Amino acid sequence: MAVQKPSIPKGTRDFTPVEMVKRNFIFETIKSVFQRFGYLPIETPAMENLSSLLGKYGEEGDKLLFKILNSGDYLSKVSGEISNTESNKLALEICEKGLRYDLTVPFARFVVQNLNEITFPFKRYQIQPVWRADRPQKGRYREFYQCDVDVIGSNSLLNEVELIQIIDKVFQSLKIGTVIKMNNRKILLGIAEMIGEPEKFIDITVAIDKLEKIGIDKVKEELLSRGINESAIEKLKPVFDLKGSNKDKINDLKKIISSSEVGLKGIQEVETILGYFDKLTINTDLELDLTLARGLNYYTGAIFEVKAKDVEIGSICGGGRYDDLTGVFGLKDVSGVGVSFGADRIYDVMEQLNIFPTEIVSSTKVMFVNFGEKEEMYCLPLLQKLRENGVNAEIFPEPAKMKKQMSYANNKNIPFVVLVGENEMSQGFLTVKNMISGEQSEIKFEELLNRVL
Amino acid sequence: MAVQKPSIPKGTRDFTPVEMVKRNFIFETIKSVFQRFGYLPIETPAMENLSSLLGKYGEEGDKLLFKILNSGDYLSKVSGEISNTESNKLALEICEKGLRYDLTVPFARFVVQNLNEITFPFKRYQIQPVWRADRPQKGRYREFYQCDVDVIGSNSLLNEVELIQIIDKVFQSLKIGTVIKMNNRKILLGIAEMIGEPEKFIDITVAIDKLEKIGIDKVKEELLSRGINESAIEKLKPVFDLKGSNKDKINDLKKIISSSEVGLKGIQEVETILGYFDKLTINTDLELDLTLARGLNYYTGAIFEVKAKDVEIGSICGGGRYDDLTGVFGLKDVSGVGVSFGADRIYDVMEQLNIFPTEIVSSTKVMFVNFGEKEEMYCLPLLQKLRENGVNAEIFPEPAKMKKQMSYANNKNIPFVVLVGENEMSQGFLTVKNMISGEQSEIKFEELLNRVL
Repeated sequence: MAVQKPSIPKGTRDFTPVEMVKRNFIFETIKSVFQRFGYLPIETPAMENLSSLLGKYGEEGDKLLFKILNSGDYLSKVSGEISNTESNKLALEICEKGLRYDLTVPFARFVVQNLNEITFPFKRYQIQPVWRADRPQKGRYREFYQCDVDVIGSNSLLNEVELIQIIDKVFQSLKIGTVIKMNNRKILLGIAEMIGEPEKFIDITVAIDKLEKIGIDKVKEELLSRGINESAIEKLKPVFDLKGSNKDKINDLKKIISSSEVGLKGIQEVETILGYFDKLTINTDLELDLTLARGLNYYTGAIFEVKAKDVEIGSICGGGRYDDLTGVFGLKDVSGVGVSFGADRIYDVMEQLNIFPTEIVSSTKVMFVNFGEKEEMYCLPLLQKLRENGVNAEIFPEPAKMKKQMSYANNKNIPFVVLVGENEMSQGFLTVKNMISGEQSEIKFEELLNRVL
Repeated sequence: MAVQKPSIPKGTRDFTPVEMVKRNFIFETIKSVFQRFGYLPIETPAMENLSSLLGKYGEEGDKLLFKILNSGDYLSKVSGEISNTESNKLALEICEKGLRYDLTVPFARFVVQNLNEITFPFKRYQIQPVWRADRPQKGRYREFYQCDVDVIGSNSLLNEVELIQIIDKVFQSLKIGTVIKMNNRKILLGIAEMIGEPEKFIDITVAIDKLEKIGIDKVKEELLSRGINESAIEKLKPVFDLKGSNKDKINDLKKIISSSEVGLKGIQEVETILGYFDKLTINTDLELDLTLARGLNYYTGAIFEVKAKDVEIGSICGGGRYDDLTGVFGLKDVSGVGVSFGADRIYDVMEQLNIFPTEIVSSTKVMFVNFGEKEEMYCLPLLQKLRENGVNAEIFPEPAKMKKQMSYANNKNIPFVVLVGENEMSQGFLTVKNMISGEQSEIKFEELLNRVL
């Protein structure tokens, strides 16, 4: 076999042990908070039927789906000559499966397909990779993990409150200072009614969603290009100008959209959610941001986005309430609400702030140096005792040069190295080197056990 | 959008919370043992370049790879008319990526590609799904998890010894009674030399590998059909007839293949490995099985297979030493050894033996019944206190009928349900129902905390 230069598809990544340990720290933290609030894990296959995926993410999304070629003689279904422009049509004939694009559509499919196995309200979390054939760039990958937490089958706003508590607890545990921005799609609909363009609701949310990225003038341009007239756009100004505390904003907004029933309903939802936090303390700032829109069409109530305070980066968590996610799979009128944590961005934030706990980088606590057969036989039962006491420990597998063994321990961030030679064996003690302080001491095995437990 | 019947590709599975919790128990047990022995986690992308995968698993394997259609205008590279028989050729032109088929080839690719980031000997574990377009059947899936543990860059047989200890510890922790069967490919090569057919080594191992499945007569037929003559096959008989303890078998075998240098080297390796266990205790039977062959061509030394004692099922773990896995990616002469745990079969064994610990099925420990707004507001701070003390707890999100709330708690196996109404609020106690015993008691919050901590 010819020698190949090893490589991986663009936009994908290997994770080395150092990265894995940090990523697992994030995943485990998020998981334990999810469980603390009564959420349970599910997993779905990496591959879904293409029919489950197509049309769910808009035209652009369809293009970004990874399609899997049918096994066997996949061309037998295709007849006639094939022109280059027929690629898309042909893909549908030769591909029946595609890779998961997010965790939301598979979740909706899961709920309907496993209806007999689940109890409503169904509180689930799901931490799995998703794939998008997007143009790879800094911080954007073609394979990345999502950490989703949703409750489906309950209209209660208490669910929104709990999700805010979950967000608060996750970022407090990770020691990332954040702001939670909240809005409500009903308020946005109210605003669309107020400016006289209710049927342009989606266009308005899509444009407003870009406010932070492109600025107010470009948003106005976009609104114009989407067919909203200048006088209507002018009416948006007071909304963009809202200032002060959440309560100030709410009071002003009530006047602005007083004529919109749905808008007032949205305000009432926001007030109810905020009301809970008069009694419940959280550490994160919770800010009503009336320019927050979130692009996805399926949101119908509260929407959330979380920003890191000390790092310039997009949102690190987001979500909201949706009222008919499972409808397309045949289950109507089931409301849900959920948020998704962006593990990759959270990783980047923690790297930039240098706040990964130092103690997580080491997996092995004790390494025995290997001096040869006799010493090995002396050390192995000690090693076994350490492991039986729950201590991660290893012995270098061969009597290599001292320098090589020590640099192995260094590279693996192993804090304690044990040296056992003739002297130690005959007198029954161990020479233990603390790799952090450099200090070397001659101690009994029981003393070592005490130090590392 | 038309309503779709939810379904998933054949051979794939959803995992419900109940299954996930059990599966995670297996994964966490395996992981903690791996870490106990100094192994570190890595992950590789689900997609590899097709060129990394093709030709690595034999002709049959090539057919079983899931190929991913190139994004965009994938047909632009293909010219001319396409006939049905050109499917395979075309797949290579329109697909550059494929889904991971196992964890071994990606590991070899990883080692060569990340050479600067790793320290040899490199002890890694990897727990990720793999995909094979195999015909799905009972217990065989198209997506399934592998749990691989390998050390690469060390010839020392101590690594084999540690892997045996790892196997022992994993199945002891899972409470599965097992037998570890061990052999050595050098011994098999010695046997091939002894019967005068060294160049038919691969044919002989492939045939012997089927011994347990198809019986000795069919194996003889297969050997004949692979061009090994009757007198040579006759010479195999004493090998198949070896009986007694490991030491008995070794002594008899030494005589049988005394003329084969490589065979004697294999025996010596086996003796060395077994020698370690004169001093180190394990709970699992370790049995030299000279008919164990393992089909994969890349093994060159020790080979292992683990059988569950009380369940009729194939091997639940297997592996061995390989001497040139990274050669195809340009890194020559690096020896490694590793084993792979079959999570799905282990799951089936544990289900059949009904040995999943009962305490793992519940994730939430305490549920508050929801009686309405006022009671909710009274309970939420208590709930928060429970969570701050590390107790998984939830409140039913809306004041639904009592029956619905209790059946939710039942379905989720929640052991404690707390009821707080007018009485409880005014007098400052909680009514707590133990869902297992049915017993109901009126206690203070601190008492509840004590019970559930």
